Amino acid sequence: MTTETKLVRTQGVTAAAGFRAAGIAAGIKASGAPDLALVFNEGPDYAAAGVFTSNQIKAAPVLWSQQVLTTGRLRAVILNSGGANACTGAPGFQDAHATAEGVAAALSDWGTETGAIEVAVCSTGLIGDRLPMDKVLAGVTEIVHELAGGLTGGEDAARAIMTTDTVPKQVALHHSVASGENWVLGGMAKGAGMMAPSLATMLVVLTTDAVASADALNSALRRASTLTFDRLDIDGSCSTNDTVLLLASGASEIQPSQSDLDDAVLRVCEDLCTQLQADAEGVTKRVVITVTGAVSEQEAVVAARAIARDSLVKTALFGSDPNWGRVLAAVGIAPVTLDPQRISVSFNGSPVCIDGAGAPGAREVDLSGEDIAVVVDLAVGDASASVRTTDLSHAYVEENSAYSS
Amino acid sequence: MTTETKLVRTQGVTAAAGFRAAGIAAGIKASGAPDLALVFNEGPDYAAAGVFTSNQIKAAPVLWSQQVLTTGRLRAVILNSGGANACTGAPGFQDAHATAEGVAAALSDWGTETGAIEVAVCSTGLIGDRLPMDKVLAGVTEIVHELAGGLTGGEDAARAIMTTDTVPKQVALHHSVASGENWVLGGMAKGAGMMAPSLATMLVVLTTDAVASADALNSALRRASTLTFDRLDIDGSCSTNDTVLLLASGASEIQPSQSDLDDAVLRVCEDLCTQLQADAEGVTKRVVITVTGAVSEQEAVVAARAIARDSLVKTALFGSDPNWGRVLAAVGIAPVTLDPQRISVSFNGSPVCIDGAGAPGAREVDLSGEDIAVVVDLAVGDASASVRTTDLSHAYVEENSAYSS
Repeated sequence: MTTETKLVRTQGVTAAAGFRAAGIAAGIKASGAPDLALVFNEGPDYAAAGVFTSNQIKAAPVLWSQQVLTTGRLRAVILNSGGANACTGAPGFQDAHATAEGVAAALSDWGTETGAIEVAVCSTGLIGDRLPMDKVLAGVTEIVHELAGGLTGGEDAARAIMTTDTVPKQVALHHSVASGENWVLGGMAKGAGMMAPSLATMLVVLTTDAVASADALNSALRRASTLTFDRLDIDGSCSTNDTVLLLASGASEIQPSQSDLDDAVLRVCEDLCTQLQADAEGVTKRVVITVTGAVSEQEAVVAARAIARDSLVKTALFGSDPNWGRVLAAVGIAPVTLDPQRISVSFNGSPVCIDGAGAPGAREVDLSGEDIAVVVDLAVGDASASVRTTDLSHAYVEENSAYSS
Repeated sequence: MTTETKLVRTQGVTAAAGFRAAGIAAGIKASGAPDLALVFNEGPDYAAAGVFTSNQIKAAPVLWSQQVLTTGRLRAVILNSGGANACTGAPGFQDAHATAEGVAAALSDWGTETGAIEVAVCSTGLIGDRLPMDKVLAGVTEIVHELAGGLTGGEDAARAIMTTDTVPKQVALHHSVASGENWVLGGMAKGAGMMAPSLATMLVVLTTDAVASADALNSALRRASTLTFDRLDIDGSCSTNDTVLLLASGASEIQPSQSDLDDAVLRVCEDLCTQLQADAEGVTKRVVITVTGAVSEQEAVVAARAIARDSLVKTALFGSDPNWGRVLAAVGIAPVTLDPQRISVSFNGSPVCIDGAGAPGAREVDLSGEDIAVVVDLAVGDASASVRTTDLSHAYVEENSAYSS
């Protein structure tokens, strides 16, 4: 059985059969921009899985959604920008709960019996302020009537969750099986980061019409997150609100193998990661740090992350300066096994450091382009890993000093 | 016996009896600025101690000086700016060794029999290039003839080790004992950081005319470094060359108690730390992050450091934005015991977050001044610690993207 796949960036959460979505301006943002999104699963299945921020300070909607996900089942996800509902105490948790109740009531009135326990809540925006609940609850009632499939609903939702994002981020992976059966996995994202990284909250909602159990979804989502969002590190900061959800409607009536499901979730997450990296705050360079020759994949990630987070490396890359010494200084403070005499480094394929000392022509390597590949070979083992990051630019400082986010 | 102390910033390594110093332009820097310094101990004692970078990638002069310090004895310290002699392989180590040999030969010719094993070497500048040894060795011969006591020698030395520093950094602590006996501990510093922090290399040389064993010096220096340089964290980067040396001539013939010695070394290191922080690259705000109510001092340091390194906190402070939510998000990713419902935060004494939620007026706190005190009370224990840092400004990005350091 041959499967052909096609990746499309003009579709997102409504690419898969059984899903509708909407995005509206509910008045949460002072600007009047869209700020409320709803993703609705029409079934017949409601299996779901989620991964959440590893920050010990978790926003109220994260605490709520973690609780909801223990059932392995979701009918809907309500998302708002314009406020994180984080560090808002017990009243903030009640707000998240009330939002889910509001969505459940509106969906029930609309003809789909839904309980609050089937509704995940995601928020993004400034930490520390209560949400304007009158606007949120009015918006929740309104948005149910805007639910649409096809291109429109998904794109409206993707736009309504944007904060400092400059473009909506969507992707859909279509699987055409030779037998004529098709299934789709799509998704949307905002922000730039995950369990460790981030500028602002990263929110991701993935949907599929495949038939899959909550366990199967959970396994695929955890594996993919570890390999993608966990390795996107823009500035080392980690949001209180980061959430990745995966919902399956089963509407295609096709049950892919676990490995096909794993592969699809990984590919969609990888693509969304690329989009998040490209639209990170203040980015002028897209940087991939790859560490090879580590004693374990874990150490390769730790070493790559240490380099990706180093302000001196990031400012040098902003200046297109092949300052490889800063890469060595950065990896030297990572708690990993290394031998200073054996480390080699290349920039965009040109060797700049061999066995711990400078290579001929190292200072002349051209880093003026937008994409920079840094490869560090520790030469003490066989494991490798890559972390995506960006440079540290004036625009990053400007955006984050002028915008209370 | 009453001891009076006086802290003076116009004196440095030559404030203590028994020390001479010099600083010259040896041609290592292309600019022609001073780039070579020598600190010479005339005795009668030669006890010494040192602490060095914790970076696994250690520059050749660090490897040399660590070896030298195993003897607990130093006659001289030669320091150069204009090149770090790091990541230069075996030839770089030979250069550091040859420099020490050159100093020993020049001092011996000058009438003071000295071995290379009595000469520590410190370097700062760009990582990865060999030093111009012809200039270094000619400079070493010349500088011995420039050695001077009093104000001049110390200040010349302090100026010759500057890289991106805008001012020389010196301090001397004078102890006047009622009996009429006096002893002095002085020092100089360049750079901004230590075991974890830094922009560029931090080099510190402390001198005292007290009588003290190498063990006593070592104990005082390690304690003081842990409480001061280790808690100065400008940008989380850690140099390959960081070095702090303490030399005792015994010329005062006074042997202070260990606790008096500890106290003096701590006060001088604290003062140099303040000077390093104030002159950090691109600084517009001097920030002290204090964590109280931690379960241990170690966890208080870890939590304070996580906040001090957070790019979103640092850019908010650059913008004078009392964005306390970013402080909570930053401490939440620190691997420390905390309870999100109990954390309180104040900015410059004004509460901005109480028990994990916003305090009234939090968004109106004035952070427009140059000094910002952030206090985070975890309220889970009794331990506390402070970390000094700075904001993340346009000037930081400019300096580090335009200057290959």
